[in-house]
Amino acid sequence: MDQEGFRKAAHAVVEHIIEYNSTLSDRPVLPKIQPGYLRDLIPSNAPEQPEPWPLIQADIESQIIPGLTHWQSPNFMAFFPALVTYPSLLGEMYSAAFTAPAFNWLCSPACTELETIVMDWVAKALALPDCFLSTSSGGGGGVIHGSASEAIVTTMVAARERYLRVRADAEGLRDGTMERDDRIAFLRGRLVALSSDQAHSSTQKGALITGTRYRSISTCLSEDLSLTAPRLEEALQQCHADGLEPYYLTLTLGTTSTCAVDDFASIATLRSKYPNLWIHIDAAYAGAALILQEYQAQYSQDIGRISDSFNFNMHKWLLVNFDASCLFVQNRNHLTRALSINPSYLQNNFTESGLVTDYRDWQIPLGRRFRALKIWFVMRSYGIEGLRMHIENSLRVGETFTAMVVERRDLFEIIATPRFALTCLRLRPGVAVAARMKQRQVNEKMYMSGDAELPHPRSAGIASWGASDTREEQTIKVDAQSNLPGREGQEQASETLANNLTKDIADLINSRGEIFITPTTTARKTLIRVVSGNPVASKEHARKAFDIIVRTTEEVLDKCRQGEDLRN
Amino acid sequence: MDQEGFRKAAHAVVEHIIEYNSTLSDRPVLPKIQPGYLRDLIPSNAPEQPEPWPLIQADIESQIIPGLTHWQSPNFMAFFPALVTYPSLLGEMYSAAFTAPAFNWLCSPACTELETIVMDWVAKALALPDCFLSTSSGGGGGVIHGSASEAIVTTMVAARERYLRVRADAEGLRDGTMERDDRIAFLRGRLVALSSDQAHSSTQKGALITGTRYRSISTCLSEDLSLTAPRLEEALQQCHADGLEPYYLTLTLGTTSTCAVDDFASIATLRSKYPNLWIHIDAAYAGAALILQEYQAQYSQDIGRISDSFNFNMHKWLLVNFDASCLFVQNRNHLTRALSINPSYLQNNFTESGLVTDYRDWQIPLGRRFRALKIWFVMRSYGIEGLRMHIENSLRVGETFTAMVVERRDLFEIIATPRFALTCLRLRPGVAVAARMKQRQVNEKMYMSGDAELPHPRSAGIASWGASDTREEQTIKVDAQSNLPGREGQEQASETLANNLTKDIADLINSRGEIFITPTTTARKTLIRVVSGNPVASKEHARKAFDIIVRTTEEVLDKCRQGEDLRN
Repeated sequence: MDQEGFRKAAHAVVEHIIEYNSTLSDRPVLPKIQPGYLRDLIPSNAPEQPEPWPLIQADIESQIIPGLTHWQSPNFMAFFPALVTYPSLLGEMYSAAFTAPAFNWLCSPACTELETIVMDWVAKALALPDCFLSTSSGGGGGVIHGSASEAIVTTMVAARERYLRVRADAEGLRDGTMERDDRIAFLRGRLVALSSDQAHSSTQKGALITGTRYRSISTCLSEDLSLTAPRLEEALQQCHADGLEPYYLTLTLGTTSTCAVDDFASIATLRSKYPNLWIHIDAAYAGAALILQEYQAQYSQDIGRISDSFNFNMHKWLLVNFDASCLFVQNRNHLTRALSINPSYLQNNFTESGLVTDYRDWQIPLGRRFRALKIWFVMRSYGIEGLRMHIENSLRVGETFTAMVVERRDLFEIIATPRFALTCLRLRPGVAVAARMKQRQVNEKMYMSGDAELPHPRSAGIASWGASDTREEQTIKVDAQSNLPGREGQEQASETLANNLTKDIADLINSRGEIFITPTTTARKTLIRVVSGNPVASKEHARKAFDIIVRTTEEVLDKCRQGEDLRN
Repeated sequence: MDQEGFRKAAHAVVEHIIEYNSTLSDRPVLPKIQPGYLRDLIPSNAPEQPEPWPLIQADIESQIIPGLTHWQSPNFMAFFPALVTYPSLLGEMYSAAFTAPAFNWLCSPACTELETIVMDWVAKALALPDCFLSTSSGGGGGVIHGSASEAIVTTMVAARERYLRVRADAEGLRDGTMERDDRIAFLRGRLVALSSDQAHSSTQKGALITGTRYRSISTCLSEDLSLTAPRLEEALQQCHADGLEPYYLTLTLGTTSTCAVDDFASIATLRSKYPNLWIHIDAAYAGAALILQEYQAQYSQDIGRISDSFNFNMHKWLLVNFDASCLFVQNRNHLTRALSINPSYLQNNFTESGLVTDYRDWQIPLGRRFRALKIWFVMRSYGIEGLRMHIENSLRVGETFTAMVVERRDLFEIIATPRFALTCLRLRPGVAVAARMKQRQVNEKMYMSGDAELPHPRSAGIASWGASDTREEQTIKVDAQSNLPGREGQEQASETLANNLTKDIADLINSRGEIFITPTTTARKTLIRVVSGNPVASKEHARKAFDIIVRTTEEVLDKCRQGEDLRN
């Protein structure tokens, strides 16, 4: 493809992207395809001869778009948002044009220098304490990682090496001695990373990658699924009692399931007691809200007070497309000391001068893309003011949605405090039980009249509570006399029923693809998570989504009343 | 930025990129800026209000481009190439437009399915054995990682867990017992990863991240810096003698310093003796040459016979822009078993059906970009035929360059066999010594005539061999009688002198920025690496580069003869 060919192709792609975006609302958010759909459409070998661009572009429309989940649709309310905006897309274009796996400063100084500058911009925009700035006296700074998972693994390596060094030093073991090596090898096998049971799975995966253990700490709904100091301290003490060495703790600002926030203030009181425990704050999604003063006032100072490192993903809610995970550390030396390797072919006078940053020592990979450009473009195109307006809009849409759920408290209950535009709702157990009772009456009638080959409704009903593979399995305590569940069993059974029907509602909604929401189970409750950070999402989208949820709920309840789900 | 704004901006960016590319040859390949240049040009805070696009784009030209190292310039001959082509850039545009952190199949089925298909395309285009195909009976397959470093860390985790499991099983220790856990904790501390001393530093860094040890195995120039079976076996036995457990070995097809290739054929004979040792073949750069039949005939079968996993970076030499590192494994279960974590919010019926691939379990991060698009575009736009022509062109340019160096064997020696378009050259020690002798005569004359405040040339000369920070330091064996180096010392001294002057030549060339080449030191010899995989590079570029090297060499030698370097 020569310059003229690219000019024509690129202009066509720009138009195609604009058209794609303008039709997003009308497309089903989830694709209507079966696993393996693409294998039938694409040859099993690459072509021997070149193909012209128009042919390739046509296949995007006919083969690729039908298989996409449209994360940019305002009807996408699943997981967390992962937005792309036009300025961000322009950033990707330049980043590709300037391709350089900029592992050293010298490899393309602008890549490194712009990153340092925009990371400071971001830290200031979020009112993070000065200790996270590249200009801080303590040697802080920010770096763009691909994902929160990478940020966590990387800081875990730094934490692990710091922990082992400090422990060995404290025991007076001299560097390079067999004694020290043996002691470190022993301690290595005892290291344990911690997080609450609400933290993202990346901490557990990080422990796996770094070859350390992992323990999760229980939270409870009555404490809004937040990790508190007493629970943390109990867990730490249990680790010590078990001969384990807690070296890393992930706290969360906005957990994946319910956007819970760990109790930073109370945990801060433990900080001095466990100085060698690396505390990382994962604010992957909700960190974007720190662009607003009210959240800064609430969280920013605590973040500086308790955490060694902090990350949030601009690529979720803050209008920069994946990947742009911002990691800030209070002391970059812990990263570079743990991760720096300096083979001859990477040595150069600039690196040796100590005047430049080589971000390769702040991350797992060596090479890196020029991701600072898209952040720079987005922050300038929107201005801080524009970013604030965007987050405020999402919060308003979320509040509207929450209010609608509250209005229908006859049908739904809200689980955990709605936060950061996320609402978690669930069918009320009472409603589920009422529908099931109705079903029993129908079945009993059919059974009495000799109609249908159904099993006896009582046993069928009880059995079905744990019947399906994708449904919750549970042993229900049955009253010996009546062969019906006792009081405790009844409560348990109604919870299970509400869980299963909530899952049915979610699955039915997603199978139709009008909106996409995520069912999940936390604290034994199956929830439907609804969150839209889309910049074009409005109260009308929230209304439409809620209407679909209500309609589908009625449908599932009706089927349940008719006993239809038993026959499927 | 609305649709109309994007249309205008994107078209302007396309034109800017075309213009940038067409002026690349004329720009100095290395920027003429000092560390920190950008800090003075950019405000220290993000703007409060939005800025218009034309203002932002203008800053690309005035602030960013002056700080870029131009990897796409045909005068870039440093490191390895990291190319971008127009079809690849179009892939990045669509990838951004379709942004979805596609961690699950369901998150955007087309992302996953296209990746599986194009990875099979790539494997077939390289004539990799069928065991690496997604359709293989053994459960092989390919996945796109961001970098070779990630591919290596990921397979190290899989290798580590496989090793520990197999060992514990073999010792009859039952799952879930304290005994097994303790044994595994012990073994974990004894694990060691291996590679030759020529392998890329990513294996050492991978060992660091996974919390295991690392040992490098010496190679020698007389064996063309290739790792052989006897050297490997000796190293393995030494590990066992030291109570260590070798679990991972990186072999290289095209090492970073000299493009050496480890001796796959001889190492294959050891395979059955160490079945639990995971062998990874890192062909990050040179793997692209497997597009040609002559290299397929030489390497592809051996790769299948000895390696558990194989990676090469399309983003180096094969026209897809960074990042596109292709990792192939013979048994994907080792990855998923080691890396799979399945929290509730990621569960879905498709994943549970087992019919779909969730690439998140094949890598460290959770989210992933839609990188398959750019590979698809490049393979279709060029056709396999076009890819072959590109690699052949690079090889011809490389051969031309090598021939020119050979012609000037009076000045240069070639270190290691030139391969894969890379030539490593170095000033002949004899030439270096002759220049230095001349300098002594000059100095002696000046000293005798009472001119200059120079120290006595003899001592000054000897001292300066190890004087500078960036130069090699070495103790020269001095003859007690004459206070001049003895025979052995003379050889050593001339080697050191050739190293230092070669480094001077490289530094002077790079400081001028006409071409960019990499100096490195391997097997105690400082080399200048010259490699250009640029698709527009021609014999004329090779000629120009060589002329610059010769001219600069003469200049450095002249200065040396004049004793100028002593006075700086």
